[in-house]
Amino acid sequence: MTQIKTKRERVKFASDNVTGACPEVLNALLKANDEDKTPYGNDELSKNLQNKFSEIFEKEVIVFPTASGTAANALALSTMTPSFGNIYCHRLSHINVDECGAPEFYTGGAKLVNLDGKNGKIIAEELNRNISGKGVVHHTQPSSVSITQLCETGVVYNLDEIKKISEITHKHDLNIHMDGARFANALVSLNCTPAEMTWKSGIDVLSFGATKNGCLAAEAIIFFKSELVGNLAFLMKRAGHLLSKMRFVSAQLDAYISNDVWLKNAKHANAMGKKLSQGLLKHKNIELAYPTDANEVFVKIPKNIIDQFNSNGYKINDDEWEDKAVRLVTAWNTHPDDVESFLNIIKS
Amino acid sequence: MTQIKTKRERVKFASDNVTGACPEVLNALLKANDEDKTPYGNDELSKNLQNKFSEIFEKEVIVFPTASGTAANALALSTMTPSFGNIYCHRLSHINVDECGAPEFYTGGAKLVNLDGKNGKIIAEELNRNISGKGVVHHTQPSSVSITQLCETGVVYNLDEIKKISEITHKHDLNIHMDGARFANALVSLNCTPAEMTWKSGIDVLSFGATKNGCLAAEAIIFFKSELVGNLAFLMKRAGHLLSKMRFVSAQLDAYISNDVWLKNAKHANAMGKKLSQGLLKHKNIELAYPTDANEVFVKIPKNIIDQFNSNGYKINDDEWEDKAVRLVTAWNTHPDDVESFLNIIKS
Amino acid sequence: MTQIKTKRERVKFASDNVTGACPEVLNALLKANDEDKTPYGNDELSKNLQNKFSEIFEKEVIVFPTASGTAANALALSTMTPSFGNIYCHRLSHINVDECGAPEFYTGGAKLVNLDGKNGKIIAEELNRNISGKGVVHHTQPSSVSITQLCETGVVYNLDEIKKISEITHKHDLNIHMDGARFANALVSLNCTPAEMTWKSGIDVLSFGATKNGCLAAEAIIFFKSELVGNLAFLMKRAGHLLSKMRFVSAQLDAYISNDVWLKNAKHANAMGKKLSQGLLKHKNIELAYPTDANEVFVKIPKNIIDQFNSNGYKINDDEWEDKAVRLVTAWNTHPDDVESFLNIIKS
Amino acid sequence: MTQIKTKRERVKFASDNVTGACPEVLNALLKANDEDKTPYGNDELSKNLQNKFSEIFEKEVIVFPTASGTAANALALSTMTPSFGNIYCHRLSHINVDECGAPEFYTGGAKLVNLDGKNGKIIAEELNRNISGKGVVHHTQPSSVSITQLCETGVVYNLDEIKKISEITHKHDLNIHMDGARFANALVSLNCTPAEMTWKSGIDVLSFGATKNGCLAAEAIIFFKSELVGNLAFLMKRAGHLLSKMRFVSAQLDAYISNDVWLKNAKHANAMGKKLSQGLLKHKNIELAYPTDANEVFVKIPKNIIDQFNSNGYKINDDEWEDKAVRLVTAWNTHPDDVESFLNIIKS
Repeated sequence: MTQIKTKRERVKFASDNVTGACPEVLNALLKANDEDKTPYGNDELSKNLQNKFSEIFEKEVIVFPTASGTAANALALSTMTPSFGNIYCHRLSHINVDECGAPEFYTGGAKLVNLDGKNGKIIAEELNRNISGKGVVHHTQPSSVSITQLCETGVVYNLDEIKKISEITHKHDLNIHMDGARFANALVSLNCTPAEMTWKSGIDVLSFGATKNGCLAAEAIIFFKSELVGNLAFLMKRAGHLLSKMRFVSAQLDAYISNDVWLKNAKHANAMGKKLSQGLLKHKNIELAYPTDANEVFVKIPKNIIDQFNSNGYKINDDEWEDKAVRLVTAWNTHPDDVESFLNIIKS
Repeated sequence: MTQIKTKRERVKFASDNVTGACPEVLNALLKANDEDKTPYGNDELSKNLQNKFSEIFEKEVIVFPTASGTAANALALSTMTPSFGNIYCHRLSHINVDECGAPEFYTGGAKLVNLDGKNGKIIAEELNRNISGKGVVHHTQPSSVSITQLCETGVVYNLDEIKKISEITHKHDLNIHMDGARFANALVSLNCTPAEMTWKSGIDVLSFGATKNGCLAAEAIIFFKSELVGNLAFLMKRAGHLLSKMRFVSAQLDAYISNDVWLKNAKHANAMGKKLSQGLLKHKNIELAYPTDANEVFVKIPKNIIDQFNSNGYKINDDEWEDKAVRLVTAWNTHPDDVESFLNIIKS
Repeated sequence: MTQIKTKRERVKFASDNVTGACPEVLNALLKANDEDKTPYGNDELSKNLQNKFSEIFEKEVIVFPTASGTAANALALSTMTPSFGNIYCHRLSHINVDECGAPEFYTGGAKLVNLDGKNGKIIAEELNRNISGKGVVHHTQPSSVSITQLCETGVVYNLDEIKKISEITHKHDLNIHMDGARFANALVSLNCTPAEMTWKSGIDVLSFGATKNGCLAAEAIIFFKSELVGNLAFLMKRAGHLLSKMRFVSAQLDAYISNDVWLKNAKHANAMGKKLSQGLLKHKNIELAYPTDANEVFVKIPKNIIDQFNSNGYKINDDEWEDKAVRLVTAWNTHPDDVESFLNIIKS
Repeated sequence: MTQIKTKRERVKFASDNVTGACPEVLNALLKANDEDKTPYGNDELSKNLQNKFSEIFEKEVIVFPTASGTAANALALSTMTPSFGNIYCHRLSHINVDECGAPEFYTGGAKLVNLDGKNGKIIAEELNRNISGKGVVHHTQPSSVSITQLCETGVVYNLDEIKKISEITHKHDLNIHMDGARFANALVSLNCTPAEMTWKSGIDVLSFGATKNGCLAAEAIIFFKSELVGNLAFLMKRAGHLLSKMRFVSAQLDAYISNDVWLKNAKHANAMGKKLSQGLLKHKNIELAYPTDANEVFVKIPKNIIDQFNSNGYKINDDEWEDKAVRLVTAWNTHPDDVESFLNIIKS
């Protein structure tokens, strides 16, 4: 097996999913290719993921690797929500806006109840007010809550906020899911432990994202409560998400959470985000739409400046985001020079 | 980017999905990792797959790459079958037996009508007899037919058989799907063109398998009739099967169908299958359960001989298959020495 | 066959679904019982409903009788909305709040997008702003709009409002459904023709309610555009809503729309609503929450007055409705004395 | 309230669902119409059904009235079977053949595994052989068994047969459902108690049919094990099967099971079936396809005799049933003269 390195191309800040895998992950994939192995996740590498994740989360967890974040979210929610259930989520949440109804499909028709909390974050009090109708046969039944960390505005929930939302959730006997597509970016932003940001703050089930932060296609559904696993193994197979050569997903995850690769990648991405954000703010006509807590920068930029960027090869779409803000995303492979080149366009 | 080679480990004949990827595919993956690219299949490599597959099939086709064969089958069938539809398939078919109800999930509850044709193959006359009740509101409605090529017994449908089944299918205004998990193995067994084995024989939609024959996780849904595509793009996204870094699936497929890699791999696997089959038949107490048309060998082996194999490190389960037959599968990376070592156990 | 009369009991204003059937409907039921007839709606009475409704709506319509309003709504919407579709409706609408997710079940997981228009009515401009994302694979797809006439606040949409909403709907190539659970009450309130309130104002599909206004269990799905019928016959059977003795539902509908029975019933109910509303408003501490356009009276009543009613045998729940309003409903069988008795409680 | 009598029309033996309601049931309906009542089954009559059925079954049961047999079957099965479950049933069963996939719809895609037992009845040994794959993630999971009593061939399961099937069912930890569309006809044929034919023989859940035997539209789902009820109330509402004026279904059921009305009706129907069967067998060219155990007569009749019947106004279709047999059904209102007139056609 040969060690390989990835080149760094000029990055367009379009999203962190435009990147490839980091060297550690890619090397793990190559290594996993060396031998024939039992399929469907019955190989040693896949089975050992349970222990590795349990160590990282300081608690015995149950892990299901998947190749897609939408699948992770929808499968997780389908074990927590009956077909006639309510999933409480922010109006801007990925599960509500960007998954073409995957939670509805996997749950068999649950209702996503939209909340309007500030800056993309659910507010515990608003959640509390909206949980109603339990036991009344005419109403869809309150069942689960889902928050996104890092949330869709690039803002991070602090631990107190998560705890308050979890408390309300559990007070009503619901379960709470965290969509952690950018889990690592949020974690290093808060500078806390994975345990603190999840089960110690009341989270029951996590979609642990790895694709955006250095993998090719690797996510994990992580259960902090074994009783919520339910029939997930069957639901996953039935959805075509139990890959026969599952070890190649497991290999990515294994390398990703080993040797602090994931934390290193996220720290770099966040640093680049901060650099980009601060650079842009130096321009008098640019202002932040949301605080830059991690690797996503939401800025309000006048049309003529956007045109300036785009005439330099960038493709910035000012119609895509709420309040006419523009989203710029840094990643594990963003080079400081990429940021400089970008900022230089408006310096001149 | 570095060229890499895979080691060859002693193979257990358990299945062709125990293998890794062949070097050409792995190199393509590495190459695709070099640059940042537009996500969700909007990269050049992904978009160009349409042309590449169209060339190979000598017809303009519409292609959707997926990471799993179950997803390919279920998504394909869901565009051909309403929730109240019948899918006619062989009792032994993978969609009926081995996908935990994926076609039912994706169609919203269609019924798989089981047929009993000989050697795992549907017989056109039996299909014809079973298509009934059209337009009667009490009955689930005849909608689609699915055949597996290579079929679940390792036997290949010849072109005339496919044509007859397609004719019956179309006579009743249904559509026909081919589950081609081992498409290449069947193709080189018949020594015909991809076009001949599919649309020229009446096939409407194909699940083109690549994972087992040299990829990591790569399949393609191929439509020979554009009007059958329907809402597949939405259904696929909604199911979590539109990977954000889809280019890594596309890269596998691109390399797989370039330079005859897929045909070379399949020819080798089939040759090893033949070698294994012929070697086993030399033993007076072993007989074939089904003809060895490609890379799957189904044999009836006395218990004491099975024990002999297993005491040498193999794991043969004589309870798994119909009629107490044992399935042995060769693959793109089966070494002739692997076959020899296996056969030597019962020579002594 | 014997003519029968129903007694009039003291009515509690809880809802119009506490009533029985009016004499004309009951007599039709008895008459239909006299003879054996072909089942599943293939009897003359059922088949003739197509003509009868076509006359009433001055247009050839396609009619499917059902026994429940929730079934009528959900089945209608399921022919207009794919599983990945958006149904735009008011936040307070029955389909959103009071059907335990029936539209989601029947569509296979569509999303009900909530609008906030004033007094329970959708506003065309707000609808227009909310229809977005068409063709983008990440988003659930705008598909249909549903308005309730009489709407959930007891307020009626005037014809101009319906036309504006229909125009926006059709501008975006969506289809529009009217939940007419209290269709007759709205119709006599507007004093227009059934045609004017529906297809002449752009409505595509109607749930025609009859249960609340004089039937036992009878509703009808009415298609003004035959191309929207789709597979409804199969979907209905599949849901268990094709009753074997369907003629007994048809008999109710037939009598209901004959000889202006439905209009007479609705006029009476509305008159009683007006009487009740005006009587309550004479009390200085009582005010209307919404205008009384038909047979539903929404009033804000101080707690001590509610207690006064309830100590006289009524069961008024002040927690059930938005803004702490109380709902009182009159019906086809409300006797003026019922209203008087009720009002007398607070006169004294 | 007035007592009413139904006329007796010449009956065509097409089915027992061509009939109307018997006088006792109709009178109960009229009586229920006299007063306004709480909707959605919260009236006294509906609530009291629990006790009435518990008495009849000599055990505390949980009862859900529905207006359709297909709804009763599908709802019952949906509480016993996950979306990835197997329902074992006879190939000829109503749930498999005549409900347009309702069980698949309500379960979210369960698989109906077809068994081939003789004369339309499941055989315990065949069932036992077919239950396999439990716990294996690739296979749909054995979940429930459904038998029809009276079964689709008009033949009755005796108590020993039911017990054996239940034992196999429970040995594998599955649950067993009885489709009792013609429950009363089977019961009086066996001359046993309702308890003996159900829970004392191991039945867990029953669809109790009443429509065919003297009601307009009334069935009941009866749970003998409360732990199987699950979320039925929500699933029923969500499907549009919780009628607002549910008391009119309850009134039918109440009258039906009072004063042995149901047993009287069934005894008469069976006697007419026997009379018809014996009369036909006197003809040398007519033979029984299945034994006449109750009110369904399956006979093989030469084409020329069928023509003779049909030229006398009957509509007998010799293509509809298996093995070219013809089905003739007697009912609670079949007059002996109806049978005589029919038989006289071939006497001459």
